[in-house]
Amino acid sequence: MSRNDGRQPDEMRPVTITRPFNHRAEGSCLIGFGQTRVICTASVEEQQPRWMKNQNRGWVTAEYGMIPRATHDRTTREASQGRQGGRTLEIQRLIGRSLRAVTDLTKLGKRTIWIDCDVVQADGGTRTASITGGFIAFMDACRWLEKQGLIKSLPITDFVAAVSCGMVKGTPLLDLNYKEDSDCETDMNFVMTGSGKFIEIQGTAETTPFTLNEFNAMANLASKGIGELIALQRKTFLGELSA
Amino acid sequence: MSRNDGRQPDEMRPVTITRPFNHRAEGSCLIGFGQTRVICTASVEEQQPRWMKNQNRGWVTAEYGMIPRATHDRTTREASQGRQGGRTLEIQRLIGRSLRAVTDLTKLGKRTIWIDCDVVQADGGTRTASITGGFIAFMDACRWLEKQGLIKSLPITDFVAAVSCGMVKGTPLLDLNYKEDSDCETDMNFVMTGSGKFIEIQGTAETTPFTLNEFNAMANLASKGIGELIALQRKTFLGELSA
Amino acid sequence: MSRNDGRQPDEMRPVTITRPFNHRAEGSCLIGFGQTRVICTASVEEQQPRWMKNQNRGWVTAEYGMIPRATHDRTTREASQGRQGGRTLEIQRLIGRSLRAVTDLTKLGKRTIWIDCDVVQADGGTRTASITGGFIAFMDACRWLEKQGLIKSLPITDFVAAVSCGMVKGTPLLDLNYKEDSDCETDMNFVMTGSGKFIEIQGTAETTPFTLNEFNAMANLASKGIGELIALQRKTFLGELSA
Amino acid sequence: MSRNDGRQPDEMRPVTITRPFNHRAEGSCLIGFGQTRVICTASVEEQQPRWMKNQNRGWVTAEYGMIPRATHDRTTREASQGRQGGRTLEIQRLIGRSLRAVTDLTKLGKRTIWIDCDVVQADGGTRTASITGGFIAFMDACRWLEKQGLIKSLPITDFVAAVSCGMVKGTPLLDLNYKEDSDCETDMNFVMTGSGKFIEIQGTAETTPFTLNEFNAMANLASKGIGELIALQRKTFLGELSA
Amino acid sequence: MSRNDGRQPDEMRPVTITRPFNHRAEGSCLIGFGQTRVICTASVEEQQPRWMKNQNRGWVTAEYGMIPRATHDRTTREASQGRQGGRTLEIQRLIGRSLRAVTDLTKLGKRTIWIDCDVVQADGGTRTASITGGFIAFMDACRWLEKQGLIKSLPITDFVAAVSCGMVKGTPLLDLNYKEDSDCETDMNFVMTGSGKFIEIQGTAETTPFTLNEFNAMANLASKGIGELIALQRKTFLGELSA
Amino acid sequence: MSRNDGRQPDEMRPVTITRPFNHRAEGSCLIGFGQTRVICTASVEEQQPRWMKNQNRGWVTAEYGMIPRATHDRTTREASQGRQGGRTLEIQRLIGRSLRAVTDLTKLGKRTIWIDCDVVQADGGTRTASITGGFIAFMDACRWLEKQGLIKSLPITDFVAAVSCGMVKGTPLLDLNYKEDSDCETDMNFVMTGSGKFIEIQGTAETTPFTLNEFNAMANLASKGIGELIALQRKTFLGELSA
Repeated sequence: MSRNDGRQPDEMRPVTITRPFNHRAEGSCLIGFGQTRVICTASVEEQQPRWMKNQNRGWVTAEYGMIPRATHDRTTREASQGRQGGRTLEIQRLIGRSLRAVTDLTKLGKRTIWIDCDVVQADGGTRTASITGGFIAFMDACRWLEKQGLIKSLPITDFVAAVSCGMVKGTPLLDLNYKEDSDCETDMNFVMTGSGKFIEIQGTAETTPFTLNEFNAMANLASKGIGELIALQRKTFLGELSA
Repeated sequence: MSRNDGRQPDEMRPVTITRPFNHRAEGSCLIGFGQTRVICTASVEEQQPRWMKNQNRGWVTAEYGMIPRATHDRTTREASQGRQGGRTLEIQRLIGRSLRAVTDLTKLGKRTIWIDCDVVQADGGTRTASITGGFIAFMDACRWLEKQGLIKSLPITDFVAAVSCGMVKGTPLLDLNYKEDSDCETDMNFVMTGSGKFIEIQGTAETTPFTLNEFNAMANLASKGIGELIALQRKTFLGELSA
Repeated sequence: MSRNDGRQPDEMRPVTITRPFNHRAEGSCLIGFGQTRVICTASVEEQQPRWMKNQNRGWVTAEYGMIPRATHDRTTREASQGRQGGRTLEIQRLIGRSLRAVTDLTKLGKRTIWIDCDVVQADGGTRTASITGGFIAFMDACRWLEKQGLIKSLPITDFVAAVSCGMVKGTPLLDLNYKEDSDCETDMNFVMTGSGKFIEIQGTAETTPFTLNEFNAMANLASKGIGELIALQRKTFLGELSA
Repeated sequence: MSRNDGRQPDEMRPVTITRPFNHRAEGSCLIGFGQTRVICTASVEEQQPRWMKNQNRGWVTAEYGMIPRATHDRTTREASQGRQGGRTLEIQRLIGRSLRAVTDLTKLGKRTIWIDCDVVQADGGTRTASITGGFIAFMDACRWLEKQGLIKSLPITDFVAAVSCGMVKGTPLLDLNYKEDSDCETDMNFVMTGSGKFIEIQGTAETTPFTLNEFNAMANLASKGIGELIALQRKTFLGELSA
Repeated sequence: MSRNDGRQPDEMRPVTITRPFNHRAEGSCLIGFGQTRVICTASVEEQQPRWMKNQNRGWVTAEYGMIPRATHDRTTREASQGRQGGRTLEIQRLIGRSLRAVTDLTKLGKRTIWIDCDVVQADGGTRTASITGGFIAFMDACRWLEKQGLIKSLPITDFVAAVSCGMVKGTPLLDLNYKEDSDCETDMNFVMTGSGKFIEIQGTAETTPFTLNEFNAMANLASKGIGELIALQRKTFLGELSA
Repeated sequence: MSRNDGRQPDEMRPVTITRPFNHRAEGSCLIGFGQTRVICTASVEEQQPRWMKNQNRGWVTAEYGMIPRATHDRTTREASQGRQGGRTLEIQRLIGRSLRAVTDLTKLGKRTIWIDCDVVQADGGTRTASITGGFIAFMDACRWLEKQGLIKSLPITDFVAAVSCGMVKGTPLLDLNYKEDSDCETDMNFVMTGSGKFIEIQGTAETTPFTLNEFNAMANLASKGIGELIALQRKTFLGELSA
């Protein structure tokens, strides 16, 4: 079976990382999963969220957005509509949970790290690219904190990356592009750690319910893809991290 | 291992269904998963959503809410805050997708079915109770349409129900109550059909990433629980459905 | 003259009280005025409203809502519209004023009591049922405060209940149901105390202006109905209140 | 008993009417009840409200606002807060109902009359001045429609005006100013027609519940005051109206 | 060339100032530029804006609004729309900047002066009338502060007024009315000080781009008009200001 | 006098144009004015704005946004705040007016061109870079329309670009960066055409009012800078445009 962009079923799109991308942020990158491109920045705020007051720890939170013409047809700007849509809120909650799952919030200290993921071109997989690139920006912000002497050691306990899988005509495919995502029977997003465990699984059978065997086939494919993404993350920081 | 309410790890809470619950709606029930209680209504609107104009089919959509004191401490009313939160939007999108996955929208005709799930008491599992009870209300609304002669046959292709599972100290547990949900390492929601296939999987490792084996243990537990829920749904409609 | 549900002009619909209805709230009931059913909860917040800062007293405030299918046709959810309508704000202001009129706010101490009235089925008289049931929830919350030793004596100075009256074809009717309310020339809401005095009067001549004599006929009818409601409230608390 | 501005208990404040006040509106006046001053305009829109589509009649609706420094201390501008408060919505609904009660909506034809009441100085009685002045603007807009040949005869069936009454230390007072309104035990608003009937009664016992006798004393006082206001309205239009 | 109201190209409309206009505000006036009429009030708040905390100075800020029927056709009320439009925000930012440019914020002390400009009739030049009248209200509020002993000397460093100019068929015109404003090729707003310097220039070529020579012709015309406005402001305060 | 980045007073920052930048938009570029970088896209919508219905022409409108970490410190995302700020609305109105001033809307036909300017890094001059880059995207979208045969000839009547100038310690400077913009006495934005005429002038004396001579010095500097920008635009399209 040949995919619409000529890839093998278990083949990721080319992943590109430009780091840093923004000269103000404590951490930043532009990540590309094929034609999908997301600006990820990590910003340090020396303040806990209000609801956390008086606890001896920090917080990591994420916001997600798309410029209007990231999509094939122009999408209305959420700022001019006066509210973030359900999909946006769902994705930014996912990014935040994924990064917090590998963070020792006590080590982070009484501060907030804001991860902003702004999609400048969307071709499927914007949430998985956001998590993968958001981790890089987050790592750099933590390293900046360490260099400034604001924290004693990195509060990050493992690497984290994400990828989507889908069933198309009964075949499991890795890293769906927009066309594949629209056509597939099932769309599944996996978030995993460097140690090969799952942090988050989100999947929907858009048209055809799936079996546990099919799920496991997708999970194994995701495991392969995330392994490659984390290898790339490791290479990115090669020689830079003490641990 | 004994659970905080004395249940076995693979034991559901008592499920209660009061049907109909509301004398206006085309379909309705009050569903209880233990202390969790949700009013589910299905309302028929003889109009397609605006974005669907000129397509030869209908739509099923869901809205979710909680009365302020459904929760242990009073929660601010979303109507007075001026917006639905991210959790609310995420849940109502999930309910809608789950019901659409077992609906032949063409058979439904050019109309919208609104599923409203209003939690009057929350003790964990409000989204899974909403899907399970929402299905019952939806089925009754479709049967009402059939009796009125507005549709020729039921547009529902299968039963659907949902349950949560979690890992607590390494043990997979079925149908978490609020206390268990707060304490668990992983919280997983499963939506399945009467034919035993998956429609939706949503899971988060709140504290400890999980393995594929652990996932499969939870999925099997969910399969057992959903089987029981669907048996109960079937019993509810016993002798009422022609098919 | 026979009414559409067979009642006499001066006859209330059957009133039902389920108490408590919610296991979390400090006070709660489900009140029914015929087919109208409202969940009333009272929640204690150990904090004054912000605008009251530094005064030596508390506050009682109310919020009102309807689940979308409480009404004959589905009503849009206020939370998804992004604002509470004028009718909602008007009713919740009325409930709050009515309860504050029988409260010694100084005795209540520096705290806020939230009265939530959520209509699950609407058939006329939702605001009068809300006040009558809200009082019961409020009383129970105050008794809870007393039992906890948080207040020395009940801050409630009198009972309070409410009922609607209307002129239909020149005849004054007590406790209008939805159909009567839609058809009547005048719709009047009365809030009275256990000592037979008025707290609030709100009336509108929808089609035919009324005379002072007609008003007095309605007021006397209301007095009768509220007397019955307060007798029911007293019976509810019989033997429970020291005073 | 002497009032804080030297009036007798049954004495209105001086009422002033500047008509027209605005050179664009089809009807307008600046009405003063003592220091309270409200700009009232009536605007003709040749369109029914959307919800009325296909009915053979028109609509009268009102909006109410205050400039920020109308009040003793500056009030936040509702436009910058992003919503109209409950008090504003309550008042504008009252004004609209009061005017519709004396309107033959069928005679008005398929159009909307917007009554805008903007308070430029507030000293108690802004809603009663708005109704009284709003009627004048509305009458002039109807007369404009008649002169333009857009309607055959005036759709107004009676005059309408409004006044407040209150109980202060057991004495009923007519037309409360702000200081009296703040101090009174009961605050009652009456809307009446030229034929001496009631359209709307709204009253609250802020501190001390009242008896039916006390209510009747206030109603009689209101009747006297509204009689004076309607005499003034009649004088305003003297010789101008054919009927 | 004769203008639509018979004025010479370099002739202002009659300017009228009623001062004070509001008996509560620390400073107020009703200013008229021909048919354009704006209520300007200045309110003293003994509090800095939140973002200024701990700085040793005050702030001057402005809000702008229009009553719905200020315009030829009724404009929707911004409060009921739930937001202030771009034009409103742009104008109130301009008024605030213009007044701050002649204010020594340190001398003002830790307080905020709110300038509210509410247009009751609009015929072109509402922003320039607002600045010119807002200055008068602001000056009176500062003089009030001085008389109260709250400040030692006036924090105002110069007079400020504003006027519009436009190019109509190649001729520069001073102080455009609404009709001229709609027809002109270029619309330019100038804000100047008593010493003849510019504070703000805002101009748009609606249809025909303009040359630097044309700009200078308009600037000179504005200089003449603003000179007249400031002469009127000086006359208004004649003998009242010590300096 | 040496500037903080070593430039001469009349020297622009390096201007970079990456074109196209987005593979979906009908026109797009990434424009850099020094460290300021803006993504500009032009999207064709085959529909007029609603308010323009039944007129024989089209519309050009702009929206402006910043990703949260475009600025030195993170700025709150407008979408999550629920409204666009005054500065944003002011800038996007300016961009829209500037482009419409060089557009023959009748030639454009019954469609809307959306210009989106999203700042990914901000260092002063974001509005001038947006206009300059927005023009390029707009031109490409018009050329796309022409190639598709949707319009007969380009509806653009002239080039347009923009630059800021300021007075710093009495010296006029061209193209201010963020630091200069914060420090300057006067901040002036100029929009000009290829024929050297002005479309828009917006200037504020933040601290020190300016004279007409000073204005003219800045205008001449702007004229030089805009000349260079338009030369660059012309070079960009060299050989591509028929005219």
